[in-house]
Amino acid sequence: MYENIKICPGYQFAGISCGLKAGGALDLALLLSDCPAVAAAVFTQNQFPAAPVIWGRKQIAEGNNLRAALINSGNANACTGHQGEVDVATVAEVLAAALQLNPVDIFISSTGVIGEPFPVTTVLKGIESLVDNLAEKITGFRALESAARAIMTTDKSPKIVGIEVETSQGRVTLTGIAKGAGMIHPDMATMLAYILTDVKIDRLIWQEMLHRVVNKSFNRISVDGDMSTNDTVLALANGVSGCGLTTSSDLEILEAALLQVAHELAVMIVKDGEGATKAVEIKVVGASGVEAAEKICRSVANSALVKTAFFGQDANWGRIIAAVGYAGVELDPELVNISFDQVRVVSGGVRDPHYREEDGSAVLRQPEFSVKIDLQSGEDEFTLLTSDLTHDYISINADYRS
Amino acid sequence: MYENIKICPGYQFAGISCGLKAGGALDLALLLSDCPAVAAAVFTQNQFPAAPVIWGRKQIAEGNNLRAALINSGNANACTGHQGEVDVATVAEVLAAALQLNPVDIFISSTGVIGEPFPVTTVLKGIESLVDNLAEKITGFRALESAARAIMTTDKSPKIVGIEVETSQGRVTLTGIAKGAGMIHPDMATMLAYILTDVKIDRLIWQEMLHRVVNKSFNRISVDGDMSTNDTVLALANGVSGCGLTTSSDLEILEAALLQVAHELAVMIVKDGEGATKAVEIKVVGASGVEAAEKICRSVANSALVKTAFFGQDANWGRIIAAVGYAGVELDPELVNISFDQVRVVSGGVRDPHYREEDGSAVLRQPEFSVKIDLQSGEDEFTLLTSDLTHDYISINADYRS
Repeated sequence: MYENIKICPGYQFAGISCGLKAGGALDLALLLSDCPAVAAAVFTQNQFPAAPVIWGRKQIAEGNNLRAALINSGNANACTGHQGEVDVATVAEVLAAALQLNPVDIFISSTGVIGEPFPVTTVLKGIESLVDNLAEKITGFRALESAARAIMTTDKSPKIVGIEVETSQGRVTLTGIAKGAGMIHPDMATMLAYILTDVKIDRLIWQEMLHRVVNKSFNRISVDGDMSTNDTVLALANGVSGCGLTTSSDLEILEAALLQVAHELAVMIVKDGEGATKAVEIKVVGASGVEAAEKICRSVANSALVKTAFFGQDANWGRIIAAVGYAGVELDPELVNISFDQVRVVSGGVRDPHYREEDGSAVLRQPEFSVKIDLQSGEDEFTLLTSDLTHDYISINADYRS
Repeated sequence: MYENIKICPGYQFAGISCGLKAGGALDLALLLSDCPAVAAAVFTQNQFPAAPVIWGRKQIAEGNNLRAALINSGNANACTGHQGEVDVATVAEVLAAALQLNPVDIFISSTGVIGEPFPVTTVLKGIESLVDNLAEKITGFRALESAARAIMTTDKSPKIVGIEVETSQGRVTLTGIAKGAGMIHPDMATMLAYILTDVKIDRLIWQEMLHRVVNKSFNRISVDGDMSTNDTVLALANGVSGCGLTTSSDLEILEAALLQVAHELAVMIVKDGEGATKAVEIKVVGASGVEAAEKICRSVANSALVKTAFFGQDANWGRIIAAVGYAGVELDPELVNISFDQVRVVSGGVRDPHYREEDGSAVLRQPEFSVKIDLQSGEDEFTLLTSDLTHDYISINADYRS
């Protein structure tokens, strides 16, 4: 599957082990642009933003172009107070010196346990190895994959997407990596994603485009309903293709491509949700108001009982009805229809007369399927991708720190 | 423990097996008052109320006195449409005829799988046995316990509380039974409770008192965040003690007693939460506004990551911080303190300098403990009782119908 991944020109990648994770696993990643890149980012809305999120928000607010992103796994540098912020600045300074850049050129992310002191000495030592690693000129997919592996926590596999698209100014490339697994929810919980392109684009247009795309991709997935202190999506555009995109048709092409990359990464995150065995699309249609559709959709997608029934391959539509009913949206039960893929299960709020349990069970045995809830009360809809809740979720999260 | 349970005079109890549950388990309960009882009830807010909930709401809205409550487990009679409502009326008629009552005297509850046709023939046959069982004059605790067992679904044990209190008019008794286990959440999810007393009391005062008590007891527990279509709390007062309570001091005594019974039943429900191994009190203090305190409290109490960490006995306070931070309440992270029982873990939003992991872990190894979150921003507070999220929860709910 990897041969089709397009790697964006004008960037170098590295991923090494610096000792933050046990057993020599990769835990420190570098994404380096050959030239200053226009930067856009979306961050967690958690009231306890991690130290690197505070650093990154400032960079984006000031409109800095960026040269590099340094990402560590193994420690979130969250709830670490003033010392955590000092550590971010130190890391940026040391990496900047090694790469002959300025600290403000360097974007930083961390993921891992919250509330432990940041092991800054370990990371500073790691920076030396990382720069040595760059000098070895390991390029292409192998380098990108190392970076994608180094940002993983409980992820089972690296998440990489790369595509090319044609614009009126020529061919451009978008390459993205992400990590997710637990705490995936609205507002991008414990999720990191980096999307790199070689287009030239206006900074404000880029930022607004990323916001729209994140709302249609990373904010449309749900694993366990938690939201982390560190969630970040960074998008860099370094312009090395020479393609300056300004016309609305070119910008539409770019936005569609950005959404494709973000959507594919989001799907990979759900499929690799902690312990997940199924990816389930929850689609609410026929709502009067998008907000009502979203409330019901999130209520179903986050229900522990519904997600456990998915794991049990149990076509227990009663639990879905219950979650629809407590979403806090007034509705007419007698209008509600529910289908599992093409199988109509509920018609008018009661079991469809033609429904057979074995047909519903056959759908739920698949690794991917959709649940469509039609309120028949309007034209609005909302869709989320969710996973099942499994024994492995409990095992992973009961034991994560030990 | 059972010898201290006081059984309210003027009521008869029965619990039998009528074939709704496999293996001859008790599945049909009757609570019968010797005379018409003033009735108050609180019902689910789910938009898909089960057929018996629709029946019961009408009785309460019309201010009917009640003589009996018939409760079946094994089938929820929810999402069963018009036929479900017809079945409730039929059951009430047949039981009324057998007991020489009117159908409107009979309160009905059902709990079990949602969306299956209601097995009305099985229940009607069961009513015969139930009335025979009453005629055998099995009285006292044995009869009450049979009723309490017959309303269980995935509960491991029956939940029974009975107390006596002194009023200015003499001694009165309150006896309650409940079932819970899964779907325990705000607004009384898949939870049934029946509290019987022998006081004489005004109907409106009784209804308002029950509302206040439910908000401080059954609505303060959380197991998995789901809310069912069938949740009901019924409170009957048949007056056989001859104690008419009208003064504010007597009413305060009664309300305190009602709250004690409801609170003890609610605690039993959390401790018997599906697969639960721990009962954890989440207490948010120092909030500016009760609503803010409640939002944060529910966010922590319902977090799958927090609840899984409790199961793992992992003092992972970072997950608690994360859940506080995404509750949707603006707060100052640098003011937040967190304690596990008497152990201060977080001070000013970062790890307390004197905190040692082994002290936190020692608290979490207990079957019951409290998590206190102090926002230091006001005078308001909110408390919930929650459980951990375990392998057994997944097993129970992945396999519940099979």
